[in-house]
Amino acid sequence: LAEREHGNLVIIGGAEDKRGPCVILRQFVELAGGDEAVVAVITAATEDPDAVSRSYRDVFERLGVRELLIVRVDRRADAFEREPVDRVERASGLFFTGGDQLRITSAIGGTPLYDALYKAYEKGTVIAGTSAGASVMSDTMIVGGEDDEAPKLCTTAMAPGMGLLRQVVVDQHFAQRGRIGRLLSALAQNPFVIGVGVDEDTAIVVRPSGVFQVVGSQTVTVLDGRAVVHTNASESSPSEPLALFGVILHILPTGHGYDLTRRTPLGPGDFQSEERAGKSNMAKGPRGQ
Amino acid sequence: LAEREHGNLVIIGGAEDKRGPCVILRQFVELAGGDEAVVAVITAATEDPDAVSRSYRDVFERLGVRELLIVRVDRRADAFEREPVDRVERASGLFFTGGDQLRITSAIGGTPLYDALYKAYEKGTVIAGTSAGASVMSDTMIVGGEDDEAPKLCTTAMAPGMGLLRQVVVDQHFAQRGRIGRLLSALAQNPFVIGVGVDEDTAIVVRPSGVFQVVGSQTVTVLDGRAVVHTNASESSPSEPLALFGVILHILPTGHGYDLTRRTPLGPGDFQSEERAGKSNMAKGPRGQ
Repeated sequence: LAEREHGNLVIIGGAEDKRGPCVILRQFVELAGGDEAVVAVITAATEDPDAVSRSYRDVFERLGVRELLIVRVDRRADAFEREPVDRVERASGLFFTGGDQLRITSAIGGTPLYDALYKAYEKGTVIAGTSAGASVMSDTMIVGGEDDEAPKLCTTAMAPGMGLLRQVVVDQHFAQRGRIGRLLSALAQNPFVIGVGVDEDTAIVVRPSGVFQVVGSQTVTVLDGRAVVHTNASESSPSEPLALFGVILHILPTGHGYDLTRRTPLGPGDFQSEERAGKSNMAKGPRGQ
Repeated sequence: LAEREHGNLVIIGGAEDKRGPCVILRQFVELAGGDEAVVAVITAATEDPDAVSRSYRDVFERLGVRELLIVRVDRRADAFEREPVDRVERASGLFFTGGDQLRITSAIGGTPLYDALYKAYEKGTVIAGTSAGASVMSDTMIVGGEDDEAPKLCTTAMAPGMGLLRQVVVDQHFAQRGRIGRLLSALAQNPFVIGVGVDEDTAIVVRPSGVFQVVGSQTVTVLDGRAVVHTNASESSPSEPLALFGVILHILPTGHGYDLTRRTPLGPGDFQSEERAGKSNMAKGPRGQ
């Protein structure tokens, strides 16, 4: 497979471990260069950037990054300033915190800061996001909806995301908030997309090849709409439950993965054989994992 | 298809409408004979049989049944008495209330009352159950588990059910309590079964042919494990998230359905054409539905 020229993505379902072994954040740090890493934490999503910055400064310093930069974007005007752009350009890894995904895109979309982070991504910088920071990764993102609900058009509000991951709609806090209904609603409206539901304390590490591997304590649910033979999404009123026949569902725990291009699930063995063959730019796990 | 000799099942996901149009309960009454119906409400599942009896007496009398019988089973000894057996034998429709599914099976399983209701089922009596009363329908039933959780062996406790529906595991309050994880856990342990998750205020009407149609305001989720290519259920520790590749998922709102024998989803048109051809013993909808 020809690898596209961009960085890895680390898409985290929220509530990742910050006190224990920090398996997910450690993997992000490794991808950003380990003890050479310069990590920029972008707090655009949160209403409490001070507390969130402190929390991530603590954990990333403990994980041994060389430098920790905070990119604070409280208002859209901040995304036109030189300072945050400089920090994004200097970083070897970018990290979007949780909060509200619309705060990220409405503040950053179409600004010099967005251009800087997209350029960084193209030149190979790893970009991570948790919770709201996970949702913004795809072309179209889910911005709201009802948890624990049957799929309906009205249960899922969508908006343009940051466009780092194509043909995918990501949802987060997935099992813990009962969100399969809202992800299926997105899928029903265009079965072309692959729905990726990431549980809390769980992440996917997406390589440039379009293969991702799961890391963390829970699971990732993949909903593949390619085989859908029927949906009534275009005829349904907003509050009417949708019909959807033939979604393919995979549950992927740590070590397992998925090829987004070939739409095939992968077992731990698939990654080991790639590693042995030396063909892979797969993220190396941390010591002792 | 040769129709087996038994009654219809009405399997309700709990919280069915009892004050408005009562679409589900009305369909059950129609199947039990309409204004000729003799309905026996079996309160074995509940700890408050008085209040539950009153509630169903109100609604079934309003829906015009000829006679309403209460079958109270507070302790297992009650299921050996003549009176409850007589009532089950006289009824044209049996209705299991909600509560705790283990109360039903531990009180009734292997008693003369169970024999009476199984015989009634074989001679064509419709049997309905809501919530706990829905779970007991299958060979193996889910008796407990974590809501809003990734599938793990420990999230789903199972026990023998009443065996009225083969090859199926039913779950109820499905979307509303985020139960896909526990149903997938059941499926992972034997992908032979079809997982049927019934939402609140929603039911499946299962005909003797093995075809069911959905009625009610929400949806039914069907999880078909036949195409599963991989699961690690046998190697996993109880609290470890499971891997499961290739489950086929269907979302079925009212009017839609599923053929449990052929494992194919059905649209409203499939039922209409059957009706036109006069080949079906499908439940007729109530007037004005």
